[in-house]
Amino acid sequence: MIYLTRRERFNAAHRLYNPEWDDKKNERIYGKCSNPNWHGHNYELFVTIKGEVKEKTGYVVNLKSLSKLIKESVIEEIDHKNINLEVSFMKGRIASTENLAIAIWTVLFKPIQELGAELHRIKIIETENNFVEYYG
Amino acid sequence: MIYLTRRERFNAAHRLYNPEWDDKKNERIYGKCSNPNWHGHNYELFVTIKGEVKEKTGYVVNLKSLSKLIKESVIEEIDHKNINLEVSFMKGRIASTENLAIAIWTVLFKPIQELGAELHRIKIIETENNFVEYYG
Amino acid sequence: MIYLTRRERFNAAHRLYNPEWDDKKNERIYGKCSNPNWHGHNYELFVTIKGEVKEKTGYVVNLKSLSKLIKESVIEEIDHKNINLEVSFMKGRIASTENLAIAIWTVLFKPIQELGAELHRIKIIETENNFVEYYG
Amino acid sequence: MIYLTRRERFNAAHRLYNPEWDDKKNERIYGKCSNPNWHGHNYELFVTIKGEVKEKTGYVVNLKSLSKLIKESVIEEIDHKNINLEVSFMKGRIASTENLAIAIWTVLFKPIQELGAELHRIKIIETENNFVEYYG
Amino acid sequence: MIYLTRRERFNAAHRLYNPEWDDKKNERIYGKCSNPNWHGHNYELFVTIKGEVKEKTGYVVNLKSLSKLIKESVIEEIDHKNINLEVSFMKGRIASTENLAIAIWTVLFKPIQELGAELHRIKIIETENNFVEYYG
Amino acid sequence: MIYLTRRERFNAAHRLYNPEWDDKKNERIYGKCSNPNWHGHNYELFVTIKGEVKEKTGYVVNLKSLSKLIKESVIEEIDHKNINLEVSFMKGRIASTENLAIAIWTVLFKPIQELGAELHRIKIIETENNFVEYYG
Repeated sequence: MIYLTRRERFNAAHRLYNPEWDDKKNERIYGKCSNPNWHGHNYELFVTIKGEVKEKTGYVVNLKSLSKLIKESVIEEIDHKNINLEVSFMKGRIASTENLAIAIWTVLFKPIQELGAELHRIKIIETENNFVEYYG
Repeated sequence: MIYLTRRERFNAAHRLYNPEWDDKKNERIYGKCSNPNWHGHNYELFVTIKGEVKEKTGYVVNLKSLSKLIKESVIEEIDHKNINLEVSFMKGRIASTENLAIAIWTVLFKPIQELGAELHRIKIIETENNFVEYYG
Repeated sequence: MIYLTRRERFNAAHRLYNPEWDDKKNERIYGKCSNPNWHGHNYELFVTIKGEVKEKTGYVVNLKSLSKLIKESVIEEIDHKNINLEVSFMKGRIASTENLAIAIWTVLFKPIQELGAELHRIKIIETENNFVEYYG
Repeated sequence: MIYLTRRERFNAAHRLYNPEWDDKKNERIYGKCSNPNWHGHNYELFVTIKGEVKEKTGYVVNLKSLSKLIKESVIEEIDHKNINLEVSFMKGRIASTENLAIAIWTVLFKPIQELGAELHRIKIIETENNFVEYYG
Repeated sequence: MIYLTRRERFNAAHRLYNPEWDDKKNERIYGKCSNPNWHGHNYELFVTIKGEVKEKTGYVVNLKSLSKLIKESVIEEIDHKNINLEVSFMKGRIASTENLAIAIWTVLFKPIQELGAELHRIKIIETENNFVEYYG
Repeated sequence: MIYLTRRERFNAAHRLYNPEWDDKKNERIYGKCSNPNWHGHNYELFVTIKGEVKEKTGYVVNLKSLSKLIKESVIEEIDHKNINLEVSFMKGRIASTENLAIAIWTVLFKPIQELGAELHRIKIIETENNFVEYYG
């Protein structure tokens, strides 16, 4: 069993906002992260898969297939977008990094099985001081 | 003459958009950077000053004063904000990294003279693949 | 279950020194790390907690509370200090990165439970070439 | 139980190539990574060991011994070399990062036991966008 | 006048070798960098241009045009290649980072003028410990 | 003319302290950086030289000679040392990064001429948020 990680990046706008609360409460809970005019980040996404090394190729999966999958399923949907308004897999979820990691797990889980491996971890770096990891 | 650089960071939303053009032309020129729903970045700002080393202190200027100045004049104004809508020193300017560097130069030039040094360079890293430098 | 990591930094002096040994033996075991006049590092501390994502907030815990806790319990005690002489939670321990990780675990374990999460890992990067991880 | 990681680096040439296939098939599977004239990387190797902290030293193992072991067993064999042609522990294996991690695990497993610890993980960063981890 | 930098990356094999010398002398001068079986690097290329900010766009030049130019003129020619054997703009030059910087300057100088800016600097990072800069 | 930069690293203890002032004034000026029990840093030193590329070698100077020079003249003197107490070239100077850059310039200027190049810049990174550059 070996673990292979691919990094992809995206730049997006978001705000932390619970629609059940009024603006005041949102600001009290989230502070400046709740700014109604949005702010944004350079997100780094690390997708880790696990599987056996195929003897013929020396690969778990072909990195190019993995990168293509992540780009088509996740990056094209979220890069240079507004996470609250435009990203289908985040609809109805608060735009926190935690929820982002869980949502991306859900998007990638089956397609990675179809590549012949298992999704092991989604890691998202939001700033150089904080990141989130999800193992399903 | 010695050069001292302080790094500060801010996260902000923006879009590239020239109000003289319609949406189509904006999109043709700027591509996805013109998304009307915004996107955002983790910006890194490097402020370089130059001056003589003071014999009594071994300092060009006190780093804490420099950091405080940058935070109060620039970071508080732009961090977790929308550069197009909310940042006073960017009013009337297209929200490109180039214009951001020039605007921050203008904000910091005199206050740094009052600290007893000369502003030498503003550098802004927008993504790991592109940055801008301005020397006045 | 999701894992959230906060990075904080501190600069400190230390030396590797076992008071049961004479200087010669300390030098034989620890080499230049045992210099009686001290040396120092820019330490990076990564605190990883785990817990359920709260549906109301999208958070495991509020990052600001976590950062405040680490700053007040650890960073203020150790930043710009001498680890051997001045840091209460390192009293009686050899000032190795291993012991530092264990001591910080002990300091943070309960307060993180009070924030509503579990401490999962303490990671300390001492130089770009070596780091230590502790899981309790 | 504590985990200690040492980073070492090496620069090497390689190509992805299965000798059972003709050049066309190799190129179809591996793309430009199969270039018969080779390409190369700055590899980063992270060796993680685990063990008890020794009360006398505050160490799991002496970092210098660990670094010396990795340098003598791995780095001297592979640095500034051609992985396909010159590295004894890669003989008969396709020169993928996956196989490299497994081979280095095999080289280091016993000598690390002789240092008084257990090998926990081999991580190899091939480019800033992909890395591999192996836990035995 | 503002300075804009674009980073691109390439992975390549090379050896330091002067064909006027025999292998012994090459090894004496270049050490292991002269290994006849090649070694390789993850090179980082930073292309810095300078020019006026265009009032209509807020750009010096469109980053996408600059990136496309570098990719088509340099990266496609050198990525996953052998610098000594396969790179047209390095023909007849010793494959040092110094010569690489000068050669890439020559390739990019005119096309960047056609984009409406001036090439200011070519910087190549060969390893985390050494890099080269060329200003024409 | 080409510019070549070599990075070396050192870990050291220091405090900011002017012996002409009492402890109170030192603390008022330098804050926690004046802690009498010292603190420390992982310093990164970047030495940039300039010169013609030698046609025979493709080198400005041999990187190994440059690295050896920096290690013998600077690193061995300062690594794992106390900058205020033990570093000959800092005697009588306040242990600021500014003074460190100037002192290292003085140490390296002539020996680099003897290598056949000119010292261009000394850059010292003290923390990820501040660095100093000196050009003579």
